Amino acid sequence: MENHEYDLVVIGSGPAGQKGAICAAKLRKKVAIIDRKRTIGGVCVHTGTIPSKTLREAVLYLSGFRQRTFYGRGYVLKDRISMADLIFRAQAVMAREIEVIKAQLRRNYVTTFEGDARFTDPNTIEVQGEDGSHVIHGSHVLVACGTRPAHSQDIPIDGRRIFDSDQLHSLEEVPRELIIVGAGIIGLEYASMFATLGVKVTLLDQRPVLVDFADREIIESLCFQLRQLGTVFRLGEKVVSVGFDEERDRVFAKLESGKNIHGQGLLYTIGRQANSDQLNIESAGLAPDARGKLAVNDHFQTAVSHIYAAGDVIGFPALASTSMEQGRLASCHMFGKPGTMPANLIPYGIYTIPEISMVGLTEEQLTKEKIPYEVGLARYAELAKAQMLGDEEGLLKLLFDPDSLKLLGVHIIGDRAAEIIHIGQVVLTMGGTIQYFRDAVFNYPTLAEAYKVAALDGLNKL
Amino acid sequence: MENHEYDLVVIGSGPAGQKGAICAAKLRKKVAIIDRKRTIGGVCVHTGTIPSKTLREAVLYLSGFRQRTFYGRGYVLKDRISMADLIFRAQAVMAREIEVIKAQLRRNYVTTFEGDARFTDPNTIEVQGEDGSHVIHGSHVLVACGTRPAHSQDIPIDGRRIFDSDQLHSLEEVPRELIIVGAGIIGLEYASMFATLGVKVTLLDQRPVLVDFADREIIESLCFQLRQLGTVFRLGEKVVSVGFDEERDRVFAKLESGKNIHGQGLLYTIGRQANSDQLNIESAGLAPDARGKLAVNDHFQTAVSHIYAAGDVIGFPALASTSMEQGRLASCHMFGKPGTMPANLIPYGIYTIPEISMVGLTEEQLTKEKIPYEVGLARYAELAKAQMLGDEEGLLKLLFDPDSLKLLGVHIIGDRAAEIIHIGQVVLTMGGTIQYFRDAVFNYPTLAEAYKVAALDGLNKL
Repeated sequence: MENHEYDLVVIGSGPAGQKGAICAAKLRKKVAIIDRKRTIGGVCVHTGTIPSKTLREAVLYLSGFRQRTFYGRGYVLKDRISMADLIFRAQAVMAREIEVIKAQLRRNYVTTFEGDARFTDPNTIEVQGEDGSHVIHGSHVLVACGTRPAHSQDIPIDGRRIFDSDQLHSLEEVPRELIIVGAGIIGLEYASMFATLGVKVTLLDQRPVLVDFADREIIESLCFQLRQLGTVFRLGEKVVSVGFDEERDRVFAKLESGKNIHGQGLLYTIGRQANSDQLNIESAGLAPDARGKLAVNDHFQTAVSHIYAAGDVIGFPALASTSMEQGRLASCHMFGKPGTMPANLIPYGIYTIPEISMVGLTEEQLTKEKIPYEVGLARYAELAKAQMLGDEEGLLKLLFDPDSLKLLGVHIIGDRAAEIIHIGQVVLTMGGTIQYFRDAVFNYPTLAEAYKVAALDGLNKL
Repeated sequence: MENHEYDLVVIGSGPAGQKGAICAAKLRKKVAIIDRKRTIGGVCVHTGTIPSKTLREAVLYLSGFRQRTFYGRGYVLKDRISMADLIFRAQAVMAREIEVIKAQLRRNYVTTFEGDARFTDPNTIEVQGEDGSHVIHGSHVLVACGTRPAHSQDIPIDGRRIFDSDQLHSLEEVPRELIIVGAGIIGLEYASMFATLGVKVTLLDQRPVLVDFADREIIESLCFQLRQLGTVFRLGEKVVSVGFDEERDRVFAKLESGKNIHGQGLLYTIGRQANSDQLNIESAGLAPDARGKLAVNDHFQTAVSHIYAAGDVIGFPALASTSMEQGRLASCHMFGKPGTMPANLIPYGIYTIPEISMVGLTEEQLTKEKIPYEVGLARYAELAKAQMLGDEEGLLKLLFDPDSLKLLGVHIIGDRAAEIIHIGQVVLTMGGTIQYFRDAVFNYPTLAEAYKVAALDGLNKL
C-alpha cells in the first residue's frame, strides 16, 4: 500500500470536481482526483446532462419537430423512432466527452485514481480500485461526489417498466404512454422530449406550482405548448401507489384523489440522493442531511474548514454550469485567491422543448420586494429568424426599472434561449440599461434581435 | 391627381426604409412610404436576406449536413433535393414577413403608396401606380431604394443556365456543377449552400483575397471546410468570357490564364447596381456614382440637406442589420434627435455554412496599427454542445490587450456564430475585459461557453 501526499484531493470527476482540480493545478498545486472507473466525468457525462441533452438534440432532429411549421403538424422525419436511434448519438458524445476530460486532467498534471473513495480521517482517503488500494493524504479535500436518483420503498422500480432517469437511457423501446412522477426540471425535460416524439405523457406532482423559481408567463407558455402535444398535467395530486398490472401488461399510478392513471412506462423522478453516504464521511467529521447533502458557507467550506464541497452534493441549483464555478471558486478560496458567485447573475437553463433560460429577477420577486418595473416583450413570431427555424411560440421578456431603465431580469422561452440569455447577462452584470439594446446593431436574421424588439416595446410603454 | 403633404417621404420599404419610417412615426411625424406593389419589404424580403437565409435553413435540414458527424460523411436526409423543396420554405417565410411589415407600418400610421417613384423637384415625388398617380410632398425625404444585381454586357445572362442571385430562386433544378463568378459575401454564401447539397462548386474571383475585412484564420477555416465539400477556388483569375455551349449542353467560363471551366449552371454575382437610376434623381439635385450609389455624411444626409439616404444605396456594408440602424438614425437626425453608429461595435454576420460572425478589430488591423494583443482560442471540438450539434470545426477567437485585458475583437466561425457574437459585442461596447468571461457562469451545454474556454486560454498565455 503506497502513500501519497497532495495539496488537494478531489472526490468525484463531474463538473465541480474537474474544474476544482484544474483550477488548483493551474495554481501549481499537487492535485489528485478520484472517481470510479466507469464514471469519469460524473453523472453529468454518464446519465445526466450530456446524455439527456444529446437525446434532446436527437429527438429534435428525428421527430422533425421544428419542421412542422412548414410541413404540417403530422410531419415526422422517422416514422418509428426506437430508443436505439435516440441513444446512439448520446454514446458518441459521451465517449468523446470522456476523452476531452481525461486529456484536460492529464494536460494539467492532475493524478487520477480509479476506485471507491472512503475517508479514514479528515485528511486521509482510501481508494479501493481494481489495481489494489491507495492511501491518499490531502491538506485540502474537495467533496464533489454528486448524487443519484432517490428511490422510495413504495415505488417498485424494475428498470424496465418503472424506472428512474438513470435507467431511462437503457430502455429497449419508447413507451407509448409515459407516466412521470415528479415534475421537477428533470421530469419536465423528459416530458417534453417524449411528448415531442408523440408519446402520451402524464405528469404527476404533489406540488401545485411548477418550477417555482421561474417566471410564471414563461412556465405557462411551456405548459400550453406541452398540452398542445397531448401532455396531461396532474398537479397538487398525491400518488398513493405505483405498480405493474401483469394481466393488463400496464403500469399504473393511483392518486389520493381516487384517479387511476395507466401507461406503458413510468418514470420516477422525485429528488436525488447525494453519494456522501458511500464515503464513510463521518470519519471526516461531517454529518450530511437526510438526503446526503453537505452544508457549506459562501466559500464552499464545510463544517471542517479544510474540506470543501461543491456540485450537486450541496444542493440547489445542481446545474453543471454552477457546479463548475463552485468547484473553481472552492479551489481559489483554499489557495488564497477568494472570489464569490454573484447570486443574481447566474443564468438558469432548462432544456425542455422549447428551451427556457433566465437571468436576474422575476416579476414575482420584484413585486414581492416592492420594486417597480416595466416589461418589454418580443414574440418570436415577429422575428424573421424564428420563422426560418419554425419556432413561432417563443418569447423574450425584459424587466427593467421604468425610471433609470436599468435591466432587472431577462426571461426567455424558445429556440436557443440558453445561448442568447448570455447577452442580457452581460448587460445585467455591467449594470446597463435597456437603451443598450435599442442602440446596438444586431445581426439579421438572428434570435438575438429579440432583445432590440423587446427594448423598443418596453421604451414605447413609458 | 391628389396632392399630399408629409413630414417624411420614404422611398423603398426594405430594412432601412421601414425602420426610418417607423422611427419618424414614433416621433409623431406624418410619414409616407413608397414601394412597388410586388416588392414591399424590399430586396431583403424578396430576393435577398430572407429567401437566401431561409434557403440556408432548408439546405441544412434537407441535406442532413450536421448529422454527418453521427451517421457518416455520406449521410443525406433526402436523396434528390429539388429547387422546389428548397424554395417552398422561403415562400412561406416571405409571405409571413410581408404581413409582419405591413402590420407594423399600419400600426404606426405610416401611409403606404404602391407604384414607381420619381422626383419632380427636391421635395416632390410622383408615384405612378395601378390606381393612378399621386404627387407627394415631403419636407424630408429618405432614399432607401436599394440595389439590384449588376449585369455586364459580356455576360449573357439568360436566367436559366447563366443567372444572377435574384434569378437563382426561380431555377427549376439544382445544377450538378455550379460555377460562381464573384466570391464576395453573396457568392460565398451560395457556394457553401450548394456545396453542402453535394454540388460541385467552382468559385472564380479576380481578387486574390476573400472577404478582406475579416480575420484570416476564420476565412481560411471557411475555405478549408468548403474544399472538404469539393469546392474549387480560382482566385486572382480574370474571367475573359462566359457562354453556353449548345452542343455539349454546358456553360463555360474562360479565364485569362487559359483555363476553361465547365458546368451545368453559372451564378454571376459581381457587385450590385443601386436603383437610384430609376428615380429621376437629378431633379432632386443629386448625382449618384457609376454604380448608382449616393454619398452621405455621418448623419446619412446627402448633398441636399433635407434628403437622406440609407441602406444598400449608400454602399458598404449593405447588411439588413446596419441598414435598419441607418434608417433609424437618419430619421432621428432629421427630427432633432441625433445619434451615431459606433463603427467598431457593429457585428458582421456572414451566413455561409458554417456561419461566420465578428465584432471589433482583426489581428490584421491591430498589427497594422501597432497595437499589441494576445489571442484566446476556443475550439468547438472541446464544447459538449458543439458535439451534440455535430459541429466539430468551429472556432471562437478573442483578441485582447495583454496588459489591461480589455477585449479588442471577437471572431467566430461555426454554428450560431451570428447569435453568440452579441455576447462579446456587449463586453466590447461597455469597455469590459476578458475577465468577465472567466468569472461569468455560462449555461451548460451551450456554444456560448466558448467565451469562457477562450478567455481561460488567453489568460493562461500571459
